[in-house]
Amino acid sequence: MGPAIEASGGSAGNTAAGVASFGGRAAFFGKVSNDALGKIYAHDMHAQGVAFDTRPLDGEPPTARSMIFVTPDGERSMNTYLGACVELGPEDVEADKASGAAVTYFEGYLWDPPRAKEAFRQTAKFAHAAGREVSMTLSDSFCVDRYRDEFLDLMRSGTVDIVFANSHEIKSLYQTASFDEALAQIRRDCKIAIVTRSEKGSVIVRGHETVTIEATRIRELVDTTGAGDLYAAGFLYGYTQGRGLKQCGDLGSLAAGLVIQQIGPRPRQNLRREAEQAGLI
Amino acid sequence: MGPAIEASGGSAGNTAAGVASFGGRAAFFGKVSNDALGKIYAHDMHAQGVAFDTRPLDGEPPTARSMIFVTPDGERSMNTYLGACVELGPEDVEADKASGAAVTYFEGYLWDPPRAKEAFRQTAKFAHAAGREVSMTLSDSFCVDRYRDEFLDLMRSGTVDIVFANSHEIKSLYQTASFDEALAQIRRDCKIAIVTRSEKGSVIVRGHETVTIEATRIRELVDTTGAGDLYAAGFLYGYTQGRGLKQCGDLGSLAAGLVIQQIGPRPRQNLRREAEQAGLI
Repeated sequence: MGPAIEASGGSAGNTAAGVASFGGRAAFFGKVSNDALGKIYAHDMHAQGVAFDTRPLDGEPPTARSMIFVTPDGERSMNTYLGACVELGPEDVEADKASGAAVTYFEGYLWDPPRAKEAFRQTAKFAHAAGREVSMTLSDSFCVDRYRDEFLDLMRSGTVDIVFANSHEIKSLYQTASFDEALAQIRRDCKIAIVTRSEKGSVIVRGHETVTIEATRIRELVDTTGAGDLYAAGFLYGYTQGRGLKQCGDLGSLAAGLVIQQIGPRPRQNLRREAEQAGLI
Repeated sequence: MGPAIEASGGSAGNTAAGVASFGGRAAFFGKVSNDALGKIYAHDMHAQGVAFDTRPLDGEPPTARSMIFVTPDGERSMNTYLGACVELGPEDVEADKASGAAVTYFEGYLWDPPRAKEAFRQTAKFAHAAGREVSMTLSDSFCVDRYRDEFLDLMRSGTVDIVFANSHEIKSLYQTASFDEALAQIRRDCKIAIVTRSEKGSVIVRGHETVTIEATRIRELVDTTGAGDLYAAGFLYGYTQGRGLKQCGDLGSLAAGLVIQQIGPRPRQNLRREAEQAGLI
């Protein structure tokens, strides 16, 4: 591995940080250890204004890390060690935050460690009991491949209302090579599906409604890490502020477009200011 | 402090990494601890192709770190903890590398810890005994203010042949408000002086010779951290390859111009490729 930089990341953590950068209120449940990396992680979350109070592990396993190799085309290969993440469990669910959040968001990546699954189901229960909505990202197509039936069940049982995915992931979910076919299916399986398509923008479907969003124009593609996470951040910020789907998607595109022009998964810009300058809020 | 990223740095370490990125051969003496930060530091140096074999400290004090606050104008404030650096001593000088290097380079910052001073004098002795040249950077104007007499003595005694500085540092060194006056003085005190002037470029003086270098044009000033270090890298790479002063300065400007357009003190580009594309090598 070449020389590298270290930056706080993690899919849902990036989304929470992005929501906060837009000026939204975000809370995060996630497990770090009380090691150097975990302390930096907590600092970055708190400094961004995210409520992050999950009790850190005392000792082993250490805080998660992912070594990410970025190629000149901006694509990346990840070598991830989940570390302390696998210890997240239902005891880490803070009922007040789960009930109080307009939308709860869960990353499909965390479907691997069994106790995180329980934590998610628990959070969804609190959220729905309080009349809130629950969302998730399918995270990646390998993840979908491992948990296809469970993910479909989450959607069809109404445990999840809103699904974020990219085109590879929905094609994997429905085991089809046809994007249109997959889109037609996911439309039936959840209340809102938001499907990102890299430089082709994104498509949002809600019942019979279809909203097409263009990708923002970028100067240089540097590193796609965080693109989906920041899209979700923009969308969820807009959505929880009561904006229409088009505007939610435009906010998502804006944030995704910024993060892919830098190394690292969280944009260094203040997203609220960027959105204001772009005339989106 | 806001959310941050972590990157290996350190003035002379950045310069060594820069020389290696140009395709030059660089070795580095510097002290880290065997903690997480120290291991990442060593990885980054080795991955860049720098020979870095200084024995790490086992335990306390931990590896050095600097919290750097960057303002929107690209300027920065540093809060530095020297940690393990203060333990660098003459026992860490590797005689073969000190004798074998065409140019030895030392950062003025390390004039604070007393044993590093000894290490430097020792290295300079080996270098001069082998007919090599010795260089240093004045590092910053506060540093110059603390060690004015010692720095002047290093130059006047011939312990240092080549001096890198910026305009603030040479004005502090000679306690004058006049850049021209300071330049006239430093010209007499060392064999070669290289003075960087931010967006005004740089001036290289050697005896009666004066070479003026333009700053490279940049797209956006992001973070000036590493600018002087990378200028020195470009200059030293060119100089040790036998290039003329003008070309050495242009290589310095190129590297400095790249590093200030990103967050962090080491450019993510391959400097050899950049120099080839710019027609400099």
